[in-house]
Amino acid sequence: MTTEENVQYLKQFATEIQTQLEWLSGFGADPAGGVTRLLYSDSWMQAQLALSEVMEASGLTAYFDDAGNLFGRLEGEELGEGCILTGSHIDTVRSGGKYDGAYGVAAGIAALSFLLANYGQPKRSLEVVSFAEEEGSRFPLTYWGSGNVTGRFQTAEPPLDIRDAQGISLQEAMHSAGFGAGTHRPSKRTDIQAFIELHIEQGAVLEREEQAVGIVGGIVGQRRFTFMVMGEANHAGTTPMAWRRDALAGAAEMIALIEEKASALKEPMVATVGQLEVSPNIPNVIPGTVQFTLDVRHADEIVLASFCEEIGSRLQAIADTRGLKLSGSEWMNAQPVPMHPELMEKLTNICEARGLSSRAMFSGAGHDAQIMQPVCKTAMLFVPSRHGISHSPLEYTAPESLSAGVAVLIDLLYDLAYS
Amino acid sequence: MTTEENVQYLKQFATEIQTQLEWLSGFGADPAGGVTRLLYSDSWMQAQLALSEVMEASGLTAYFDDAGNLFGRLEGEELGEGCILTGSHIDTVRSGGKYDGAYGVAAGIAALSFLLANYGQPKRSLEVVSFAEEEGSRFPLTYWGSGNVTGRFQTAEPPLDIRDAQGISLQEAMHSAGFGAGTHRPSKRTDIQAFIELHIEQGAVLEREEQAVGIVGGIVGQRRFTFMVMGEANHAGTTPMAWRRDALAGAAEMIALIEEKASALKEPMVATVGQLEVSPNIPNVIPGTVQFTLDVRHADEIVLASFCEEIGSRLQAIADTRGLKLSGSEWMNAQPVPMHPELMEKLTNICEARGLSSRAMFSGAGHDAQIMQPVCKTAMLFVPSRHGISHSPLEYTAPESLSAGVAVLIDLLYDLAYS
Repeated sequence: MTTEENVQYLKQFATEIQTQLEWLSGFGADPAGGVTRLLYSDSWMQAQLALSEVMEASGLTAYFDDAGNLFGRLEGEELGEGCILTGSHIDTVRSGGKYDGAYGVAAGIAALSFLLANYGQPKRSLEVVSFAEEEGSRFPLTYWGSGNVTGRFQTAEPPLDIRDAQGISLQEAMHSAGFGAGTHRPSKRTDIQAFIELHIEQGAVLEREEQAVGIVGGIVGQRRFTFMVMGEANHAGTTPMAWRRDALAGAAEMIALIEEKASALKEPMVATVGQLEVSPNIPNVIPGTVQFTLDVRHADEIVLASFCEEIGSRLQAIADTRGLKLSGSEWMNAQPVPMHPELMEKLTNICEARGLSSRAMFSGAGHDAQIMQPVCKTAMLFVPSRHGISHSPLEYTAPESLSAGVAVLIDLLYDLAYS
Repeated sequence: MTTEENVQYLKQFATEIQTQLEWLSGFGADPAGGVTRLLYSDSWMQAQLALSEVMEASGLTAYFDDAGNLFGRLEGEELGEGCILTGSHIDTVRSGGKYDGAYGVAAGIAALSFLLANYGQPKRSLEVVSFAEEEGSRFPLTYWGSGNVTGRFQTAEPPLDIRDAQGISLQEAMHSAGFGAGTHRPSKRTDIQAFIELHIEQGAVLEREEQAVGIVGGIVGQRRFTFMVMGEANHAGTTPMAWRRDALAGAAEMIALIEEKASALKEPMVATVGQLEVSPNIPNVIPGTVQFTLDVRHADEIVLASFCEEIGSRLQAIADTRGLKLSGSEWMNAQPVPMHPELMEKLTNICEARGLSSRAMFSGAGHDAQIMQPVCKTAMLFVPSRHGISHSPLEYTAPESLSAGVAVLIDLLYDLAYS
């Protein structure tokens, strides 16, 4: 392409993707500008059905699997060569934005449509997926969509006792939406050779560093804990400072230490105390108990484990010094997931060839890519999020960023499926 | 009295007061062992009426005033000489103990009864009061009882818009209980020359220091603030440590500073962050906003004011350094109230003469004595609270402590009314 053609080509995608994301946000739109599409809800179902029509209109063969994952397929010339998959999810958090997940689906459809129109049938089959569920917003469960594709979950045996806020079980909701074992194609796949997920960054690193594209080296491991600090509730007026066993003063020292230790380590180490409850929580009573959560993330399992261990013993030391009791429990331990070096290298070369600035980075958030990684070569690509805002009606990515991402995705898919 | 007689005399009071407090706790008793007597409630009214019978049976003239304060009077020989008052309150917090307030009322009745039986009519009139309300448990208002006696409040013009949790106004509740302007004797008094309040400590100072009696030098001043720390809620995984504006990490540093500064000052300085709310309060979201209360108490207004000023500017400095916004509002400012030096000296001498250990101390909690102090010579006497526990069914004071307090009270009342 000439430079002029390239500019036109990118403009076309910018408009196309933006228009499609606006249109898709109509499914589950709330008056405040947010989008709520929960797994197997009416708005979710309508969005999936509408997308299947878009896929068909783009020349793809659309189909659902038993879990409700929607695929658009472009059959390859070479039989038995497996399949190159791209896509993301269309379920949202409550009152989320228009870009998280949806961008990867819309971009995938646009990319396959462009490849078909310009290069005809691929050698290897290409598919775009709109995963049924990633956010865990309706049920206390995440990655139901990609988890069924990889065999982590099975529609025939959904986890029991998983219910939404209304008491409806995952199984009931799945059946109500017309899905479940035997209703469509089996979810479990063994033919996928590569999965490429294009996603908004959900952070402000690319924006601040003015990089067009982020090439994800891995998804950080996450550990989550709940700590309970137990002191003694007492009268705020009649208990001298020296005799107090103030659970909140103790927790404050712990939170300060966590922040200090995490800040002292290099990126991508992050540690967050996001939730905290005080009891009895009355202005004139010394806090007797404080419960708080700790969320720690790093791309290196050894660094992550040693940080958590050190924090645990340092918090215990603070509690001991203050005559407080401390108990901690770990309720999440997700290992770091590295992306495929070969695909990362291809992405780096593509960006260079296109004159797009890029940087290697870790994903601090979880994505379907981490579920797909054990079964196929997996890569992730980020585009900037304005002000790093995500999971909010304020979520926004500029049109030129949307099109840059699609252009890089097209080049990689071409490399994998046509060459 | 001989030593033997003195021992018998104290034993008698121990039994008498303990029996009366047990009996009184039957009014408003809950199954968990707590006592709930809210202003103008049925259990409160029954307790006041039952106490008026006890007063009459003890040789006192019982009467109510318009606010529902109950008095037991022992007329003095010398007309126009004014009145020496003792007593406390019988309203409670929800599920409170048997001693807070009630002890001062029972002790006052026992003291006047003893003085009458042993020394006959006093020179100056003696009265015991069971104030209608001190705790602020039913209505968002405190000291309604003593406040009517001193003229701070008037039954004819109760504060408007003061309602309980059921929406009943103070005025409606007062009228329902049969009180209000013109129903009984006027509440406002100008004849009270001295007020002595005997009360449990509600702290653990006397117990830890093994002192029989605390002679209160003053009631600390209190200032209460609410601070709002505003940062930026953000994704816990995708926001590097260096770019965070974490409201909770900022609040933690502030709480640590408050504790450090208050501990560095001598008693009776106390500072407490008792209530704290995090928003959005989700494990994987960096806290955007934290609101917390600060309760500061000291007996010296200058020390109190300078501490609050320093804390205010130090908290602002922490906020500035972290790129956080801080707003603070003061919603309580009660000045310290000194007790009368002459009465304190008399109490010290009485304890010495009785061979009772005692220490001067400040009251970190509020009491009716601070309302009476502007209109008459006022003193307060503390006896030990087991483990410092108060406002709880676990509230307890040993019988020998109860009787020691009564003995000192009797001696002071004798000095003031008979000599």
